[in-house]
Amino acid sequence: MKEKAVIVLSGGLDSTTCMGIARDKGFELYPITFFYNQRHQREVEHARQVAQHYGVADRHKIVNVSFLGDIGASALTDRNIAVPTTGVGEDIPKTYVPARNLIFLSLAVAYAEVIGAKTLYTGVNAVDYSGYPDCRPEFIRSLTETVNLATKAGVTSKDKIKIETPLISLTKGEIIQRGLELNVPYELTTSCYQGEEEACGVCDSCLLRLKGFTENNVVDPIPYKAITT
Amino acid sequence: MKEKAVIVLSGGLDSTTCMGIARDKGFELYPITFFYNQRHQREVEHARQVAQHYGVADRHKIVNVSFLGDIGASALTDRNIAVPTTGVGEDIPKTYVPARNLIFLSLAVAYAEVIGAKTLYTGVNAVDYSGYPDCRPEFIRSLTETVNLATKAGVTSKDKIKIETPLISLTKGEIIQRGLELNVPYELTTSCYQGEEEACGVCDSCLLRLKGFTENNVVDPIPYKAITT
Repeated sequence: MKEKAVIVLSGGLDSTTCMGIARDKGFELYPITFFYNQRHQREVEHARQVAQHYGVADRHKIVNVSFLGDIGASALTDRNIAVPTTGVGEDIPKTYVPARNLIFLSLAVAYAEVIGAKTLYTGVNAVDYSGYPDCRPEFIRSLTETVNLATKAGVTSKDKIKIETPLISLTKGEIIQRGLELNVPYELTTSCYQGEEEACGVCDSCLLRLKGFTENNVVDPIPYKAITT
Repeated sequence: MKEKAVIVLSGGLDSTTCMGIARDKGFELYPITFFYNQRHQREVEHARQVAQHYGVADRHKIVNVSFLGDIGASALTDRNIAVPTTGVGEDIPKTYVPARNLIFLSLAVAYAEVIGAKTLYTGVNAVDYSGYPDCRPEFIRSLTETVNLATKAGVTSKDKIKIETPLISLTKGEIIQRGLELNVPYELTTSCYQGEEEACGVCDSCLLRLKGFTENNVVDPIPYKAITT
């Protein structure tokens, strides 16, 4: 029987690449998608299409965590804060949601425990978005220790829970290169912070994505707005 | 200005005692209560009354996490599993919710970060419910390290986030003793797993609570069903 893996799937480029990588490693895929009142709400629909592409629509858990909007304050949850378009800087970005990866990975661990999976995949990346504290390897290492102390699975079994972060030290170009090798369906993904039908092409997320495709000499298959400059 | 503390408040005896302890330490209290489709749903109303008692109803965050019912499987969230009444045993109890304290404390950390609190209080206890892996000191120590790596507050400030567990090594009798000294309003709390108007007096939670009051030679101020034996 195949081993199960829970994949944190946002419908974006990175997490969809993780689907391809986990499938390539031979895992049975159990994607989990978190849905909240955010600008890129459309991602959920993309995540559904990605799950369908991989033939695991029936194992796709979509979790409404809209209460994060009550607790948090960030450009992704609060419509009164403008999405930054000034390029990636050194500081913690305005799009930071308090403890987001801690919360999402904790929920993914609960799902893993229920279905009997010992492996989680997350597309966190410490290169392009180095400003997010919860995308760094030291955070993932510490969380792995914590979840193995927190759960029945971690405490009672000799097989510890593992959090796989295959993209953590790759550039966007390298991520896309790996995904293209694995036939990851990038046409189904979305990255734009604005979350409209066509990508804006000017937000931080679009700029990084476009640069990554350019480095691979491949045209990004998703539609972009005509940009008048 | 007083320092702020987030208190994980269930409306039960332990978390309400934490309210008294944190107030006694001079903190401004910010209770957070998690609400899900569970048998002891009434706890939320008790938590409200406790928050009101301490004059912090306007700072009380009540968070609907009913999606846990989708992810988890446990006697507390699944009505098809009977509540155990066989006494506290050695194994991980049937009332275990996968990664519950990890999830709740992660959300409490997000709230702390938004309001600018560096201290969290949780009433976890490793004595009476030793079967829950996420109530042990080693879990709390590891989580503290993780949250300080996960959050803007933990990374950018020299004041690290602290998770206070004043009850972790106390018996129920000792918890109640401390609470009585601090005039904790136990008449507003609820502990019964059955979650009805009057406590059942026979579930594990009721038995422990009654024993704790007996040890203090104090009558538990909440109403119990007449028990016919």
